[in-house]
Amino acid sequence: MSKRPDPARRSERSRQAVLEAARELVSELGYAKVSIEAIAARAGVGKQTIYRWWRSKGAVIFDAFLALSQVGDSITLPDTGDIEADLKLVMRATVAEFADPAFEAPIRALNMEIINDPDLAAQYREKLAGPVDEAKKARLRSAQRAGQIAADADLDLALELLYAPLFQRWLHRSGPLTPQYADALVELTLKALRPA
Amino acid sequence: MSKRPDPARRSERSRQAVLEAARELVSELGYAKVSIEAIAARAGVGKQTIYRWWRSKGAVIFDAFLALSQVGDSITLPDTGDIEADLKLVMRATVAEFADPAFEAPIRALNMEIINDPDLAAQYREKLAGPVDEAKKARLRSAQRAGQIAADADLDLALELLYAPLFQRWLHRSGPLTPQYADALVELTLKALRPA
Repeated sequence: MSKRPDPARRSERSRQAVLEAARELVSELGYAKVSIEAIAARAGVGKQTIYRWWRSKGAVIFDAFLALSQVGDSITLPDTGDIEADLKLVMRATVAEFADPAFEAPIRALNMEIINDPDLAAQYREKLAGPVDEAKKARLRSAQRAGQIAADADLDLALELLYAPLFQRWLHRSGPLTPQYADALVELTLKALRPA
Repeated sequence: MSKRPDPARRSERSRQAVLEAARELVSELGYAKVSIEAIAARAGVGKQTIYRWWRSKGAVIFDAFLALSQVGDSITLPDTGDIEADLKLVMRATVAEFADPAFEAPIRALNMEIINDPDLAAQYREKLAGPVDEAKKARLRSAQRAGQIAADADLDLALELLYAPLFQRWLHRSGPLTPQYADALVELTLKALRPA
């Protein structure tokens, strides 16, 4: 048996250490105060190691966040046949997630990157938002088949109606994030989508 | 007549020069690349002059933006008696504004500040978003009196339903900003708010 180090494995260990360091530092210091130098020091790697894989601080933090919210291939929303109850369950969980201080720093950091960098915004849509939206739309389609949502409803717009108010309220800190708020968004959206 | 310089007037000239320099530089370089040094150089003032009035780059750029979108005391929305037509007019104008490349840089810079700084977020709500929202709610109240919107509708939530999807679509660059989009948002929102 050889005792040579395995470069691929060592490389993957360094990559994971960098991602973990980035997550920790963003949570401790906030996005603005985190530097590539600090991430390298915390991860125990050289700056050049980071720049071999990522082109900017934003790109590292984006990947750190992406790894955190591992989107599986098989996201599905609950489907009890009652679209209102199912959406309220999902929206209450989403509102609780946004209201959780532990999610605050990385999600805000992610949004900073998305605002500033159209390429990262496209990556975010492709890798993260896209698959999740597809799962949500599958549930809405099931509700369309059940006659609970208008057959001609624009489902992309439906998702915006449901989630964008929560996102904006969180981003601008313009109102409370409560279970009642989650329910109100579901009720208004379903009223807007009701069949004629 | 005295020829002594007027310190108050000179001071105000410097302030205006700083705000104009900040606006120009954000539009030319993007928020991330603008520094206090560059603003001071362009405005022809010392860095210490800027720090006398503002505590950070973000605060300067926030004020520069605020001065640009001077919110008068007397904003009113059109009221022809037809809430759908009036809101479509307003939303089409808002969508066009967001789609205008000239607004792109300062509005994105403003949002960066709001995400990062809860104090600036509060200022933004008080000085900018608040008065505009009040004007919009006055129009919705008029529609409530006319029986076009449910009397018990939550008007803050109504505004979120109407504007947040546009805001998120613009911020994440996740879809086209068209007059058709403006109309669709108005139609869905009014359906959600319809009296029973």
